[in-house]
Amino acid sequence: MRFVKGHGTENDFVVLPDPDGRLELPDDAVRRICDRRSGLGADGVLRVVPAALVEDGARYAEEARWFMDYRNADGSIAEMCGNGVRVYARYLVESGLSRPGRLRLATRGGVKVVDVEHDGDVVVDMGLAVVGEDVPVDGEKATAVDMGNPHAVLAVPSVEALGVLGPDRKDLNVEYVEEVGPAHVRMRVHERGVGETRSCGTGACAAVVATVLRTGDERDRPYAVDVPGGRLTVTWRSDGHVLLAGPAVLVASGELSAAWLERP
Amino acid sequence: MRFVKGHGTENDFVVLPDPDGRLELPDDAVRRICDRRSGLGADGVLRVVPAALVEDGARYAEEARWFMDYRNADGSIAEMCGNGVRVYARYLVESGLSRPGRLRLATRGGVKVVDVEHDGDVVVDMGLAVVGEDVPVDGEKATAVDMGNPHAVLAVPSVEALGVLGPDRKDLNVEYVEEVGPAHVRMRVHERGVGETRSCGTGACAAVVATVLRTGDERDRPYAVDVPGGRLTVTWRSDGHVLLAGPAVLVASGELSAAWLERP
Repeated sequence: MRFVKGHGTENDFVVLPDPDGRLELPDDAVRRICDRRSGLGADGVLRVVPAALVEDGARYAEEARWFMDYRNADGSIAEMCGNGVRVYARYLVESGLSRPGRLRLATRGGVKVVDVEHDGDVVVDMGLAVVGEDVPVDGEKATAVDMGNPHAVLAVPSVEALGVLGPDRKDLNVEYVEEVGPAHVRMRVHERGVGETRSCGTGACAAVVATVLRTGDERDRPYAVDVPGGRLTVTWRSDGHVLLAGPAVLVASGELSAAWLERP
Repeated sequence: MRFVKGHGTENDFVVLPDPDGRLELPDDAVRRICDRRSGLGADGVLRVVPAALVEDGARYAEEARWFMDYRNADGSIAEMCGNGVRVYARYLVESGLSRPGRLRLATRGGVKVVDVEHDGDVVVDMGLAVVGEDVPVDGEKATAVDMGNPHAVLAVPSVEALGVLGPDRKDLNVEYVEEVGPAHVRMRVHERGVGETRSCGTGACAAVVATVLRTGDERDRPYAVDVPGGRLTVTWRSDGHVLLAGPAVLVASGELSAAWLERP
């Protein structure tokens, strides 16, 4: 089984090319591949398969050639991943499966428009941000932003001073956001079911939407979002769409050992 | 740069073949390769280089063809690693650089004799165990065993009941050992400078030496040592040498991206 290992702001993935849609990938295989000691190690697996060849992708096959079959490290299925889709797009271009430029990629969260070259940031249209009513988190009012998954954003004076993150809401992704300058924030995120992570693409989008609302800043302005794993750039457009730009780095490529894969 | 990823009882390594002794491997490259999010991820790097071609190995070149240049994930140099040497030996055999059977491998801790086939446990002669005077750990008397590095072994009724490990001695590797049956122990280990790990080869050796001394059991008897990362087998021979046997698994092989390696 061929693989590529890559990361986007230190959210890391094993990419598995499956151009013929023949790869069997049971939950257990995903867990073994993602194990950071006994496997290759990653936050998740990105299977690269033609949309026409998978049940969840067939309806998008007319507009998008490739489907992102994203699995979490525990084997479960996820709709979308803002960091993963960048690594996926960079792989398509570096492997020659797609030309650089604007790609349309099918995901379980719909078709995503991605701008990708051989180098530099990859830009993903993450779709509409839906702002809800404020929600209470840790005794404060947090801004509720839905990016396909639910976020609650709290403005704080310093993300460094927070210490270990442990919000009292476990059903939401919680972003703590510190303004460090014009159109520049720092963010730490506590992902539901996971804990603190080094980066969260949808979380960065939610953080900028909440900051623009809070400060009354103009739309269409690119915000730098510093996360522990690097820097993302987020633009909340006037039409309501959120653009997420960030690095996508391919680290290594090779083959998983057949003997290791077969061992139960 | 070619690589192989493997592990021994979940102590994991990136193996870097360097048959011509030309690989430049500064500390910073080791740290980047071993980073579990932005790199390939491992506890350490094992450079496979002819003994005759490296300063630390040249004096062993007559008796050992290959030198194990072991680096910790932080880039520092280490003398030996009981789990790493098994993975190293398995790689030599699987890659065709050595024939299966008995190998002599040069390390910074001297020449090691290793028995390795294509499958099954790899057996390493870890050399002499030196037993010292008891040392106080957590208010108890621990057995001091030097295996090239210093260990203190405590017998406990249950390793599971211990909770988070935090011995009051930070200058020693501390093993907590539970007897579960004849010639069968469970072990948890707190490695100095690291914290609890999933396995420690020299620690398993020290644990069996201390248990044999404590119970008055006979020498030359293979002990099963269950660690969080799997099972090791340790034999304290009548001649004082300790044999460590355990799995060595090669998971994947490939190439590190040249563009990624060049990026500072």
